[in-house]
Amino acid sequence: MRPSGRHNHEMRAVRITRGFTKHAEGSALVEFGDTKILCNASVEERVPPWLRNSGRGWITAEYAMLPRATQSRNDREAVRGRQQGRTVEIQRLIGRSLRAAIDLQALGERRIIIDCDVLQADGGTRTAAITGGYVALADALQSLIKKGLLKRPPLFGHVAAVSVGIYRGKVVLDLDYAEDAEAETDMNIVMNEVGALIEIQGTAEGHAFRRVELGQMIDLAEEGTRSLIEAQRQALEA
Amino acid sequence: MRPSGRHNHEMRAVRITRGFTKHAEGSALVEFGDTKILCNASVEERVPPWLRNSGRGWITAEYAMLPRATQSRNDREAVRGRQQGRTVEIQRLIGRSLRAAIDLQALGERRIIIDCDVLQADGGTRTAAITGGYVALADALQSLIKKGLLKRPPLFGHVAAVSVGIYRGKVVLDLDYAEDAEAETDMNIVMNEVGALIEIQGTAEGHAFRRVELGQMIDLAEEGTRSLIEAQRQALEA
Amino acid sequence: MRPSGRHNHEMRAVRITRGFTKHAEGSALVEFGDTKILCNASVEERVPPWLRNSGRGWITAEYAMLPRATQSRNDREAVRGRQQGRTVEIQRLIGRSLRAAIDLQALGERRIIIDCDVLQADGGTRTAAITGGYVALADALQSLIKKGLLKRPPLFGHVAAVSVGIYRGKVVLDLDYAEDAEAETDMNIVMNEVGALIEIQGTAEGHAFRRVELGQMIDLAEEGTRSLIEAQRQALEA
Amino acid sequence: MRPSGRHNHEMRAVRITRGFTKHAEGSALVEFGDTKILCNASVEERVPPWLRNSGRGWITAEYAMLPRATQSRNDREAVRGRQQGRTVEIQRLIGRSLRAAIDLQALGERRIIIDCDVLQADGGTRTAAITGGYVALADALQSLIKKGLLKRPPLFGHVAAVSVGIYRGKVVLDLDYAEDAEAETDMNIVMNEVGALIEIQGTAEGHAFRRVELGQMIDLAEEGTRSLIEAQRQALEA
Amino acid sequence: MRPSGRHNHEMRAVRITRGFTKHAEGSALVEFGDTKILCNASVEERVPPWLRNSGRGWITAEYAMLPRATQSRNDREAVRGRQQGRTVEIQRLIGRSLRAAIDLQALGERRIIIDCDVLQADGGTRTAAITGGYVALADALQSLIKKGLLKRPPLFGHVAAVSVGIYRGKVVLDLDYAEDAEAETDMNIVMNEVGALIEIQGTAEGHAFRRVELGQMIDLAEEGTRSLIEAQRQALEA
Amino acid sequence: MRPSGRHNHEMRAVRITRGFTKHAEGSALVEFGDTKILCNASVEERVPPWLRNSGRGWITAEYAMLPRATQSRNDREAVRGRQQGRTVEIQRLIGRSLRAAIDLQALGERRIIIDCDVLQADGGTRTAAITGGYVALADALQSLIKKGLLKRPPLFGHVAAVSVGIYRGKVVLDLDYAEDAEAETDMNIVMNEVGALIEIQGTAEGHAFRRVELGQMIDLAEEGTRSLIEAQRQALEA
Repeated sequence: MRPSGRHNHEMRAVRITRGFTKHAEGSALVEFGDTKILCNASVEERVPPWLRNSGRGWITAEYAMLPRATQSRNDREAVRGRQQGRTVEIQRLIGRSLRAAIDLQALGERRIIIDCDVLQADGGTRTAAITGGYVALADALQSLIKKGLLKRPPLFGHVAAVSVGIYRGKVVLDLDYAEDAEAETDMNIVMNEVGALIEIQGTAEGHAFRRVELGQMIDLAEEGTRSLIEAQRQALEA
Repeated sequence: MRPSGRHNHEMRAVRITRGFTKHAEGSALVEFGDTKILCNASVEERVPPWLRNSGRGWITAEYAMLPRATQSRNDREAVRGRQQGRTVEIQRLIGRSLRAAIDLQALGERRIIIDCDVLQADGGTRTAAITGGYVALADALQSLIKKGLLKRPPLFGHVAAVSVGIYRGKVVLDLDYAEDAEAETDMNIVMNEVGALIEIQGTAEGHAFRRVELGQMIDLAEEGTRSLIEAQRQALEA
Repeated sequence: MRPSGRHNHEMRAVRITRGFTKHAEGSALVEFGDTKILCNASVEERVPPWLRNSGRGWITAEYAMLPRATQSRNDREAVRGRQQGRTVEIQRLIGRSLRAAIDLQALGERRIIIDCDVLQADGGTRTAAITGGYVALADALQSLIKKGLLKRPPLFGHVAAVSVGIYRGKVVLDLDYAEDAEAETDMNIVMNEVGALIEIQGTAEGHAFRRVELGQMIDLAEEGTRSLIEAQRQALEA
Repeated sequence: MRPSGRHNHEMRAVRITRGFTKHAEGSALVEFGDTKILCNASVEERVPPWLRNSGRGWITAEYAMLPRATQSRNDREAVRGRQQGRTVEIQRLIGRSLRAAIDLQALGERRIIIDCDVLQADGGTRTAAITGGYVALADALQSLIKKGLLKRPPLFGHVAAVSVGIYRGKVVLDLDYAEDAEAETDMNIVMNEVGALIEIQGTAEGHAFRRVELGQMIDLAEEGTRSLIEAQRQALEA
Repeated sequence: MRPSGRHNHEMRAVRITRGFTKHAEGSALVEFGDTKILCNASVEERVPPWLRNSGRGWITAEYAMLPRATQSRNDREAVRGRQQGRTVEIQRLIGRSLRAAIDLQALGERRIIIDCDVLQADGGTRTAAITGGYVALADALQSLIKKGLLKRPPLFGHVAAVSVGIYRGKVVLDLDYAEDAEAETDMNIVMNEVGALIEIQGTAEGHAFRRVELGQMIDLAEEGTRSLIEAQRQALEA
Repeated sequence: MRPSGRHNHEMRAVRITRGFTKHAEGSALVEFGDTKILCNASVEERVPPWLRNSGRGWITAEYAMLPRATQSRNDREAVRGRQQGRTVEIQRLIGRSLRAAIDLQALGERRIIIDCDVLQADGGTRTAAITGGYVALADALQSLIKKGLLKRPPLFGHVAAVSVGIYRGKVVLDLDYAEDAEAETDMNIVMNEVGALIEIQGTAEGHAFRRVELGQMIDLAEEGTRSLIEAQRQALEA
């Protein structure tokens, strides 16, 4: 039995609120249950030095948790003077995953930065950030179309992410914090709309996992990302 | 005529939503018009080294703007590796102002940290943070009472803050960003519930201001903080 | 009775020594009693990026205390690797105050940096730094006139600063360290030569202060800055 | 055809030289072809604060490339003043992978740090570091046995890692730099001696990869890690 | 001919003003011509961790130049966020040299920090800092005797330092900035009162120097330090 | 008797292995007994800002010890976020010493960086780094000749360095760690092939040293550097 009472293949309630803030070119508040992340996409009409005059654009992400997004307070990274390893790892994953969704050549020499700030955390923040970040990105691309800077969105298709894992011997979908803290295996999977893999990151926290378990986890992730992509579609059509 | 169409002595719509997040001992989303700040109060059962064994507690504040809280994106301070001068100045002001509201001896050897994270900025973030931070602080004190760690809230009374200034020659209350960017004088005033001054910080941006103008600005601030304290009361009674 | 035996409206002995060091375009040692600050003004023929091609100049200040300027030694900020919040706050105040004295358009695209290094501290360092910094600035402008880069000093007039406060229930002028450490209210006021306000920063350290007290403090500050401006004049004419 | 002329399932020549330096409790130079990494294991008789009095030990890793380990020189991280995101990500992976090999309770309250310094890089540094780090760790445990601090090595078994990927449409084992730079999919797999998965990290650099390709990559990785564990055994028995 | 008109073996005017500031346990302003350095000695009743319970004391030095001590302004190290290599090198030299003057066992478990802040620079700052730092140190030791914490000053004797060099082919004593910038060889020599060497640091800036030149430089340094030690004695007896 | 059983004038076994790594333009592993340093020279076709358009080139060095190069592990400087004072001092010495060997005008506007990474330390790392760095530099210059960018190596001649000191009252050559830790005087001497001095840095660790001892130390250093230059020649001719 999962702490939340959910079935093993059951996701938490997912909500995506577009336009949560007014200044960003794209803005979405994404909620996976009690995990709440504000994803803002900002367009910059310049690229990092190594892309200048390449005709190609770039997508990066930055991630942070508000100090009290969690049960006990974490030091603010700006006060410590540096981002933690975990933060760096997550923002690199978000950036890589969203770059897989976009034709950087068609984007042209501009950079879109996806800021993912966790207002409240209850497990699965990196997968929620990718899922919500996609919506903010899509809206930022729409703003470029409205300004006449692009003709059509340079997207290859949707990208969404979900966590799967082995909790008390069972393969489960979309782990919340209570499960995450105890899971034997923890895996984050990023998929596109045809169920192909963009990123897979799995870690055996307890004992090593077998290939049959890996297969079951990917099956669940496929279900999960399919429903997340549906939620993205509904949000973007609203 | 003010850009927003408000009267000179008219504040923006103020909204204080308690319990905006679930983990913090006190949490309030404060809105002054389009300025939206999440204030979370965290209780720590220890004090800075220079207060150990003093029997006294401490209140500090930390302030940050999400990178895209503003019209154009600001670099994330955690990425730059340090807080900007403006940030440091604001969080020191918030901490000092809220310490004026509380009996640190009665609080006992514990520290309450007020995190003020600006989700969306439209001028007046430091005064909104003080006003909302008071509510988060009051709730954190209630949590200590519920746990039996305090008998009554060690508060001297309410504290609230508002900006006043001279905009196009007129003394105005609660400047939004459009006014702030052009104001000849910009002043932040922190007051308690009997209209006495806790902090006053005024800067002539254009030419120097006269004492009669200072008097008019304080008059407006008195009105403004009175209505803000009323809003705090309603939020806390809700 | 004040610890120093001074009357409530009595300033400490003020001394301004021009040309204390030889390399800077403007250099003044300012003393308010035992507070001694070396103010050096350096001219740079370039401006910060955001002012390039604007035709306007800029004034900034940097402030530091030598580690043993105070009764007990403070860590050197260069060793810690960052400036403290207090330092940042003070140097921003000095810069803002001196910018109010100067026509940045007439200065032209150059930057003047005012370095204020406290050799010995006994309260009131920020107000002494503004007062002495003005003299260093005026001398640096003279050096530009001598080089034929300016025709006349682009100054609107004098600017000086003094602290006032409430010490043991009495409103007093120019607090030294012994008073500062115990004052109920501590206020720094920057004024120009006609007694108009450029900056006011007041903090209730104990209980909140009333408007009548604010008025009395500004009265004292007006007297104090008038005598400081006289001291600036004498130094500059010497 | 692979740039090196290798078959798709063929690893580079692997060499593990124990005792490459004399001070460390465990030291191994690991070579995967032209990739050369010095792995030193240091034992510390204390643990991080959050493990004190837990009776449990800890394993961490640190990773760095010498500035000229690569074709063009990289800035030294100590000069820049911080580790790059890639470095942090890799050293977290190494630490996590080696912790999976060891019974931290049986290790007791001590920490073993595995320093992995890349002397020369030609792709696959993180997998070589894990593979060589295991040997350094095993030797450090032997040193504890020799000192009478442990009775037997608290190892669950071997752990080794190898990269797999899709290069020009083919699934290949142990990518060198020439392949890595062009691969469509890049995956690092950490396995134990029974072929169970400890970590899997795969990224689609070009288009998304399908589950059948994932299966083929894991097949190759299983072969690769089996031969690496054999190389570890030979080194440790030498 | 030297730029200053001095003879090759002639030092600049040396002045040592004790008690230049009032808070430090020892304070001396040392002047070698236009080079002016404030040396403050602070006593701390604790030692670095690696000396705790050793019964031994420690001497360290910190060195800085005010930003406009020099002809063109240098960035403030506290603003840059770190001390430059040159600074670190100099303060290590000062500390080492002064430790050679003192019996650390007799000092007892306390630390004396010598802050050397260059108010104005004209070459030879490190040697002036050592020479003046000795006087501040001696006064700080007197303050410990006055407090009854020491019976007698734990000094082995005097230590002073001077620069020598080869300027336009001639061996010269006590180089000023004009000479230093062009010298072929630049050497700093620290000696005790019997002319034995405590530290020698010589660098060929142009071509390498011969042993006979080295001998001539040491001869001059011996003369120079003898007169500096005489100046220290006079200052300390005043 | 020296701990190693060597005669007072006897160096440790010296070995210089060219081409230790394959990417750098010059690469040499230098060994002085158990001290092993990898010296890599990298050519950059640009110079620091202050040399642009001067027609002159530049040589810099960077130095680091691997964390476990020593008997007990040192924190990694990249993790601490800054280089230690000792590191900065050493790399400045290496750069200065190697610049003395080269005609920077003839080198042309390019920079050569000498990375000296200590794989294993047993005393004398700075002198070994200079000696091996020279070989890496010479090879990097050969690579420029091969590319047709230089006609002949712009070297004035060889440069090598060795430590000398006073150990248990005797003047000894090439101190290892056991001697270094106890030496009364520790001196590093950099010489060219005609025995002229490029740098001399001597420190009395115990009591001050006399000029006759200085002479004996330089005699030994002359012998030592002569044999080191011979070793450089053999390596470069191999």
